[in-house]
Amino acid sequence: MTIHKGIRTGGRSARVQQSVHAAVKKLLESHDRADVTVPMIAQSAGVTPSTIYRRWGDIATLLADVALERFEPDEHLPDTGGFRGDVLAYAELYLDEMSSDLGRSMLRDVVATDDNNCALRCAELITKRLVVLAERAVARGETPPSTAFLIDGIFAPMVYRILFSETAPDNAYIRTLVDRCLPAD
Amino acid sequence: MTIHKGIRTGGRSARVQQSVHAAVKKLLESHDRADVTVPMIAQSAGVTPSTIYRRWGDIATLLADVALERFEPDEHLPDTGGFRGDVLAYAELYLDEMSSDLGRSMLRDVVATDDNNCALRCAELITKRLVVLAERAVARGETPPSTAFLIDGIFAPMVYRILFSETAPDNAYIRTLVDRCLPAD
Repeated sequence: MTIHKGIRTGGRSARVQQSVHAAVKKLLESHDRADVTVPMIAQSAGVTPSTIYRRWGDIATLLADVALERFEPDEHLPDTGGFRGDVLAYAELYLDEMSSDLGRSMLRDVVATDDNNCALRCAELITKRLVVLAERAVARGETPPSTAFLIDGIFAPMVYRILFSETAPDNAYIRTLVDRCLPAD
Repeated sequence: MTIHKGIRTGGRSARVQQSVHAAVKKLLESHDRADVTVPMIAQSAGVTPSTIYRRWGDIATLLADVALERFEPDEHLPDTGGFRGDVLAYAELYLDEMSSDLGRSMLRDVVATDDNNCALRCAELITKRLVVLAERAVARGETPPSTAFLIDGIFAPMVYRILFSETAPDNAYIRTLVDRCLPAD
């Protein structure tokens, strides 16, 4: 099931999206996510369950959609004056976000849904920001490696350990990964 | 919810496990996983739903438990006569398993459950086999890098791309990752 962003028909559609997202966030404050159902969300949002099924397909996709929205890039990326420092600062920021309860839930919701679009949006959170850092580096006269190389070497291991380890990685671990990909001069 | 492997009390407990696992596998052949419920499994397995809840806690944990069982190491690991070749051969085998529909479902089920024990068992599928390859290498007089280094450099990026990309990685990509970690002589 794909979230049809393109076919939102303005006013009503945007209002439905807003009230359904708000209902999910509110319910998750007082309920375990496994206990939240589509009928509960529909009642709280003042829409019919079929409106939700038509738009999101299933609850996993809806939860992933809500979770992703919270992590859309909005803050300013750190500017340390050099690419290596910028990547390290962003990697620490990402770890901080994603090893929180909210971040881990987001990663899990995104992986759990059948909607591949959610996984791609999640991966884009990283690539978009790395592209900004790389453009900045090129403007400074640096020659940064590809974003794919940095994702393989830094962000994929971080996400893997957040999802599959007993304890989240720490900043020392992030620094080791950055050192491997971008050796300090 | 942790699966209490330790407290299985022999005969009846093993029979319950076996019939519940068999019921899940059978139901998944004819149903979408989102449509399979605990009462359906209980009926098919000839146990009460509360037996399932007591043992697995929730359906996500049960699905992950069943999925993991299919990937327990049993086959012989490839022996190419050198550590680099062995790791490459195993990485290709892992990609083949995990980029299949069954493998991707397993990774998703494991990530979706609250039971951290499932994620650890999933990560151990890799570490256990890498330890075997490393022991073999040491016996040959080689000095292999740590398994953590190989997981960061090869297996984490592979799992990340299986979970978050549009298309699964291919063997050329695996070879690039192996080359970075274990340069050919």
